[in-house]
Amino acid sequence: MWKDHEVQVDSILIANQSDTFVTNKVLEANLEYGGIPGDLHFGLTKLAGARETMYKRGTEIFNRRQISIVSAEECDLVAEKLGVERILPEWLGANIVLRGFQDLTRLTPGSRIVFPSGAGILCEGENLPCTQPGMVIQEQYPDKPKMAARFVKLALGCRGIVGIVERPGKIFTGNKAKVVVYNPPGQPCGV
Amino acid sequence: MWKDHEVQVDSILIANQSDTFVTNKVLEANLEYGGIPGDLHFGLTKLAGARETMYKRGTEIFNRRQISIVSAEECDLVAEKLGVERILPEWLGANIVLRGFQDLTRLTPGSRIVFPSGAGILCEGENLPCTQPGMVIQEQYPDKPKMAARFVKLALGCRGIVGIVERPGKIFTGNKAKVVVYNPPGQPCGV
Repeated sequence: MWKDHEVQVDSILIANQSDTFVTNKVLEANLEYGGIPGDLHFGLTKLAGARETMYKRGTEIFNRRQISIVSAEECDLVAEKLGVERILPEWLGANIVLRGFQDLTRLTPGSRIVFPSGAGILCEGENLPCTQPGMVIQEQYPDKPKMAARFVKLALGCRGIVGIVERPGKIFTGNKAKVVVYNPPGQPCGV
Repeated sequence: MWKDHEVQVDSILIANQSDTFVTNKVLEANLEYGGIPGDLHFGLTKLAGARETMYKRGTEIFNRRQISIVSAEECDLVAEKLGVERILPEWLGANIVLRGFQDLTRLTPGSRIVFPSGAGILCEGENLPCTQPGMVIQEQYPDKPKMAARFVKLALGCRGIVGIVERPGKIFTGNKAKVVVYNPPGQPCGV
């Protein structure tokens, strides 16, 4: 049911500029219920937007998109698919970059990422690619056509995950963390 | 990606007795962030237990098991598998019983259940069967052998789901609610 994998925290980033979701590297961060204080996506609640069309736009709802996590390997893969030299996690608004885990984007919801301090993040599943990061990528590669649309299409399945802070605590760049993978029993329930 | 299904709220229940997780029917309830006030599982946080072995037992963590939801159809299925006349949602500690949705237990995490008031629940996935409800079932059917162990085994895949209150609001018995099913794109991300 559960399987542990060791990964490395390659970098930690915060969206702390007022006019953009683009993140900046920091050496460490304090995970609190709601996310990383000072980060654009911090909060136990958020306003419903294009990703939550089951609610009226602007409705206050619980925030399941507190933390954005990507893998170094999948960033390379997205770059390869887009035919560009590199994709920085900053451009994706990522908060944590992990290294050493295959197919992070496919991590089953209910899985956890646990850090040496005891801090833990609950995986809420794939972060579906949207145009905003694609537009940032376009700015970086002005000679490449249609990068925003191509990002939305080609980064599907490899753009990382979102999660909820389950256990507060400090995280540090270089931490060896543990991905606790949830494998659903998947047993059919016919009589 | 998203598909709506109409369901009916068959009953609403609260665990409001001090010595048991067994729930009692009520006509209506107020969903708040954290669950249903007065219910045993209410709270934005909980203490880590046997289901959260990635944390030290007793650690305060975020509560993703705020609301327990079952379907009338799956309760009948569990009864059939156990060879008993019926399984009451009360015995399972269920908070909400839905009718009219196939395979509720297999509802993809990230799906929602939205009520006419606007209240909404975020699906956190399958509620894995454990022995406690099995022991309650055993008390109801003292002549049947090994009900607790059989429940844990046979109710796998049909014991319902747990969820987080995403949008507070009132819910009423008899409500027509909407299950907003999330179908992950599931696209492979190979180059």
